[in-house]
Amino acid sequence: MAFAFPGISKLAVAVSTALALLATTPVQAKDPTVNIKVAGMFGSNFKPIGAHVNDMVANVRAATDDTVKMRFFEPGALVPVMGIFDAVSSGSVDAGFVGIGLYINKEPGLALYNAAPFTPELSQFLAWIYYGGGQQVLDEVLEKHNMKAVFCGLLAPEAGGWFNKEVNSLDDFKGLKMRIGGLGANVLEKIGVSTQALGGGDVFPALERGVIDAAEFSNPGMDESMGFDQAAKYYYFPGWQNPVSPEWLIINKAVYNKLTDKQKKAIDVACGNAVARSIAEGEVLSMQAVERLRAKGVDIRQWKPEVVQQLKDLWVEEANRLASTDPNFKKIWESQQNFRQQHDKLMQLQKLP
Amino acid sequence: MAFAFPGISKLAVAVSTALALLATTPVQAKDPTVNIKVAGMFGSNFKPIGAHVNDMVANVRAATDDTVKMRFFEPGALVPVMGIFDAVSSGSVDAGFVGIGLYINKEPGLALYNAAPFTPELSQFLAWIYYGGGQQVLDEVLEKHNMKAVFCGLLAPEAGGWFNKEVNSLDDFKGLKMRIGGLGANVLEKIGVSTQALGGGDVFPALERGVIDAAEFSNPGMDESMGFDQAAKYYYFPGWQNPVSPEWLIINKAVYNKLTDKQKKAIDVACGNAVARSIAEGEVLSMQAVERLRAKGVDIRQWKPEVVQQLKDLWVEEANRLASTDPNFKKIWESQQNFRQQHDKLMQLQKLP
Repeated sequence: MAFAFPGISKLAVAVSTALALLATTPVQAKDPTVNIKVAGMFGSNFKPIGAHVNDMVANVRAATDDTVKMRFFEPGALVPVMGIFDAVSSGSVDAGFVGIGLYINKEPGLALYNAAPFTPELSQFLAWIYYGGGQQVLDEVLEKHNMKAVFCGLLAPEAGGWFNKEVNSLDDFKGLKMRIGGLGANVLEKIGVSTQALGGGDVFPALERGVIDAAEFSNPGMDESMGFDQAAKYYYFPGWQNPVSPEWLIINKAVYNKLTDKQKKAIDVACGNAVARSIAEGEVLSMQAVERLRAKGVDIRQWKPEVVQQLKDLWVEEANRLASTDPNFKKIWESQQNFRQQHDKLMQLQKLP
Repeated sequence: MAFAFPGISKLAVAVSTALALLATTPVQAKDPTVNIKVAGMFGSNFKPIGAHVNDMVANVRAATDDTVKMRFFEPGALVPVMGIFDAVSSGSVDAGFVGIGLYINKEPGLALYNAAPFTPELSQFLAWIYYGGGQQVLDEVLEKHNMKAVFCGLLAPEAGGWFNKEVNSLDDFKGLKMRIGGLGANVLEKIGVSTQALGGGDVFPALERGVIDAAEFSNPGMDESMGFDQAAKYYYFPGWQNPVSPEWLIINKAVYNKLTDKQKKAIDVACGNAVARSIAEGEVLSMQAVERLRAKGVDIRQWKPEVVQQLKDLWVEEANRLASTDPNFKKIWESQQNFRQQHDKLMQLQKLP
């Protein structure tokens, strides 16, 4: 490790002097009050993100001397969850806190910011968004949708899903009826899985009655709370279909433009803080859930690396197909893949046993 | 992926009503003004952390309506870097922004919070600090040192170091004279390396003149700026001696106790934000530096996994020895290792090819 010991520079003295002056100048005029109602996709009791959203809202209010009157609304209270994107776009709702990948019917490439198979791993994703062009491309894509999206937290990585038979090869997937949402379903369809994106409450009964043979749903904490261990024998990892789950605060552009730079900065800071802490809590909740499930006797399995690699190859094929049909998907996919190819070299070098 | 669609609950209505009332109540009395001079260990132009520290300071001031008058001072301006810990402890300086592992002569276990070999990987470290007991243990250990430490950013992972001959096995380390700081030096001493913790400016000339055969210094961006490629042929990875480098805002306890909960929260939030963004920028800077060094013809090498595993085994042996000689090191080491053993199981399950 190195420590730097530069002496105090002239610039530093100048900066310190300027700061000292700043500290004695009178308090500036208050920023204008802006109301921001936030339509939630996740309930405020949804772990771990619910508490982080509440905290983010409180931090924005505190940091802006309550001039940004942000208020969170439970899912469905302002607008149905499926309608949040349109409502924020039109301005009928000020803002939403969403897994932006739910709206791939509006903009297919949004999946790559939230819930796609084989996303970049965590630090690579943070690097791409904050300093690798990811946010810029998103800003461009959302221009026509009339909204700004701020990266504002993560859900824990998902598990691979619940199965009632062993799945040791791609062939073993063939013929399965499986609940799976998002673009992971496109991948499994290619290998003969009949997929259905059943809603939350419908998954357990379908799995228990054998209407479906398998179900991918969410991360271990959420899966545990759904009681899937009572309906399926094997719990598979890794969650290739959604390994990193960034969540976004989307704000109508006209509302966002009313904010001063200081108010915008307060939102960025509160969201950056939510990112760091939700990563941490998600890991702990998943770790504890897996331990409890193991203790209950769930047969926890891991796909062989070659099976996961085959799924990855199929995903890249599918993503390239999507890129060929949608210019914005292409733009996002290329930005993410280009960054990844560079950064993977560093990750490979830094890999520890 | 899953999406939750709970209806609005009675609790949610109650919370919304309470928030609405809150929004109309008059603004509370202003918090008392607290001056916090922060002694820097890294200059404000030190990438990537310098800019994040400046940003953190500005965010704390903005979020507290300038009642927390935090000011950053360049290294040496308030107190020599080696004296920051003592100065904050005694209260002669309010606060410091430090790699807390520099002060292992005061408290050996602090290395495990900043600059130890084979630290937990990034998300595991975040989880341990924020939700796995790491912060609590640190609070206990720092009690007698009369300070509070807030996790407030990270430097990029370090590289393994510069060598003038190939190092293919532990035997190849034997007899080397090497610049290496921190506890990594203890590990290399075990296998016959003669280590020296030369200061920044002394490393290049020593390496160039052959006074030393090898030098570990910092992350690729910093190493590049020191010009080591002009003095050594091989650049080795991974940086086993310091894979995660968390940085800390340490605040004298009496100063910290003057802060209201709102002011403390503003510091936590600004620091959480610095954590998320400095991770991201560190990755990008390292990636770019490695690419430039490669383009300049530096021979970039990677130790075989078995060599790194042997170093890891030696480190665990050394850490256990340190734990047997120092109760606080033991307490921290056990907390970190226990968390790691649990969380490693999840990481193994979630591993992607």
